[in-house]
Amino acid sequence: MTSWLPTLITATPEAGYELAVKLARVAVKMTQADPAVRDRLRADYAEDAEALIAVSHVVAVHFATVAAANGYWRGDA
Amino acid sequence: MTSWLPTLITATPEAGYELAVKLARVAVKMTQADPAVRDRLRADYAEDAEALIAVSHVVAVHFATVAAANGYWRGDA
Amino acid sequence: MTSWLPTLITATPEAGYELAVKLARVAVKMTQADPAVRDRLRADYAEDAEALIAVSHVVAVHFATVAAANGYWRGDA
Amino acid sequence: MTSWLPTLITATPEAGYELAVKLARVAVKMTQADPAVRDRLRADYAEDAEALIAVSHVVAVHFATVAAANGYWRGDA
Amino acid sequence: MTSWLPTLITATPEAGYELAVKLARVAVKMTQADPAVRDRLRADYAEDAEALIAVSHVVAVHFATVAAANGYWRGDA
Amino acid sequence: MTSWLPTLITATPEAGYELAVKLARVAVKMTQADPAVRDRLRADYAEDAEALIAVSHVVAVHFATVAAANGYWRGDA
Repeated sequence: MTSWLPTLITATPEAGYELAVKLARVAVKMTQADPAVRDRLRADYAEDAEALIAVSHVVAVHFATVAAANGYWRGDA
Repeated sequence: MTSWLPTLITATPEAGYELAVKLARVAVKMTQADPAVRDRLRADYAEDAEALIAVSHVVAVHFATVAAANGYWRGDA
Repeated sequence: MTSWLPTLITATPEAGYELAVKLARVAVKMTQADPAVRDRLRADYAEDAEALIAVSHVVAVHFATVAAANGYWRGDA
Repeated sequence: MTSWLPTLITATPEAGYELAVKLARVAVKMTQADPAVRDRLRADYAEDAEALIAVSHVVAVHFATVAAANGYWRGDA
Repeated sequence: MTSWLPTLITATPEAGYELAVKLARVAVKMTQADPAVRDRLRADYAEDAEALIAVSHVVAVHFATVAAANGYWRGDA
Repeated sequence: MTSWLPTLITATPEAGYELAVKLARVAVKMTQADPAVRDRLRADYAEDAEALIAVSHVVAVHFATVAAANGYWRGDA
């Protein structure tokens, strides 16, 4: 069976950021399971500055976790 | 007696994420003990983009804790 | 003299979560000392999804602290 | 000259929590220097559940810092 | 291929802060891909104190991550 | 060339707190570069309890970073 989250380890910081975006979205999906409703809400908040900043905030919290998991990709520096 | 939270250790990151969702929900239950009220509120906020993002934020904070508890599941990488 | 917070150490994760809930409530009491006002406000926000999520967020931040204090109760796993 | 913040070290968790409350208040004072305005605003938000929860959130963030500074007062356990 | 985020390591704290600002903005771009919409929203929230504080909050979370990644630039002190 | 942020190291916790306030303000300046607009917004939010609490929250996040950078000034205790 495939997991949507097999690991927090990513090859690069950029891939880690993309994982953080995914982690932020999954909780929304779990709370609102209907894709049609999510699409409608997404159209709304994509035009709402406060909501976009709030999304960015959630991504930031997850990115902190993913970055720590990866030892901040210090080997890439 | 069974605990709803016997441990923060999970076998996989995905199970850790599910635990984070649970941790976010329990505080709501403790503050609003009436399941009928919670169901009504849930129907409301599941249609509210700002509330869904706020839920995702709480999950992110708990996921950080669960991930740290599990050493970021680095052995799975 | 008895302290309301003698230690952050708890026997189990569940007890740690309950301590986090307590930690979230004490700051409210310190800011609004009148129990009658708090009871009235509580009746309001217990019916308000955004407020319930906000309460859950504060609990999440305190739970992170309590969990770290307890070494994530790894010995319980 | 006396500092309002000579140290983050406190004898007990309870004293650490009180320091966190103080840390949360000082930023407000620095942004709104007029005590009369602060008193008026305080009267308002002490009756506002969302604001009280927001205050509790800021205290939680500072408490995390103070608790870490004190090694979580583990010697008290 | 060039990455927008090749590393979290920066030469100075100031460069780390600039990276944090960038990290905060990218999530907004990923959620609202249309630059014209973003420009319009930006014009709005740049006049909105609450939104500016919210942006600053997201930057703070990313700065914590970048600072940790860089060992707080302690070698610069 | 002088940096506005040459280091996160400060002599005292109080100076660390002042640095946290500065770190919170710079992101606002970077998003709203016009000092006249900022002064107008500042006059507004200095009278708004929710905004003052939000500012205090951002300071708390930066203070956590600065305190960690300074090893919590434990040598001062």
